[in-house]
Amino acid sequence: MSADANPAERPATLPTQPAGAWLDAVRWDADGLVPVIAQEQGSGDVLMFAWMNREALALTAELGRAVYYSRSRQRLWRKGEESGHVQQVHEIRLDCDQDVVLLKVTQLGHEPGIACHTGRHACFFQRLEGQGAEAQWQTVEPVLKDPETIYNR
Amino acid sequence: MSADANPAERPATLPTQPAGAWLDAVRWDADGLVPVIAQEQGSGDVLMFAWMNREALALTAELGRAVYYSRSRQRLWRKGEESGHVQQVHEIRLDCDQDVVLLKVTQLGHEPGIACHTGRHACFFQRLEGQGAEAQWQTVEPVLKDPETIYNR
Repeated sequence: MSADANPAERPATLPTQPAGAWLDAVRWDADGLVPVIAQEQGSGDVLMFAWMNREALALTAELGRAVYYSRSRQRLWRKGEESGHVQQVHEIRLDCDQDVVLLKVTQLGHEPGIACHTGRHACFFQRLEGQGAEAQWQTVEPVLKDPETIYNR
Repeated sequence: MSADANPAERPATLPTQPAGAWLDAVRWDADGLVPVIAQEQGSGDVLMFAWMNREALALTAELGRAVYYSRSRQRLWRKGEESGHVQQVHEIRLDCDQDVVLLKVTQLGHEPGIACHTGRHACFFQRLEGQGAEAQWQTVEPVLKDPETIYNR
């Protein structure tokens, strides 16, 4: 019997909720999100951290490029949609507790790759220096491209 | 005037709240936590993902070993306290939005290092294989040590 034969037996899934046991296996948080780490395939550098909802993860797998969920804008965020700095996705991994995703990516759109909105290679450019209460976050990575020229093209 | 001269002028900080502008700079979430990525210094492998509160981050910096905050147990979790798989911390980094921490660590206690409670090197041992709704998470990394022998010594 096809799914259309008896509408009452159709899955209760909304049209925007992509199907897949692999998506059900993810332990989404109370907001329906999962934290995501993007790691550069070639260098091993941790580029950035973001969030995905079910639709973003399904799209990422389907398109082979990173699609996140922006909590501030409350909508899908196709990485690179404004900057051109698209992330090509080689692998999608899930952790032991099924509640964190790791992407292995190539950062496209600039050489070397720019993942951060500040125009830097990666978002983790502040390093703690010093000891105790006097320690300070120091910026230790260069800006590769002026963000003004990235976002106001 | 010393801080003891006039008790009324003492900082209102609780004894368990370590001081430091660098700790104030972190954008703690509504639960007072920040997500933390632990990356192996030598290999670049992303080992695990966890959370820290202010005390955990201060202790991590002070001790040079990773101290997380366990959300399930609601207490500090000195990584390796049961397993012996301590993480020596070489660098503490903060991201562009000041709300994610990256640790560069050496995973001690076993060779090769075991960060995951399943006895594997890293927590991200499940890789998505296949396409569309039929895709599946496949375990692609070996168990290096039986968890029974890690936690019931």
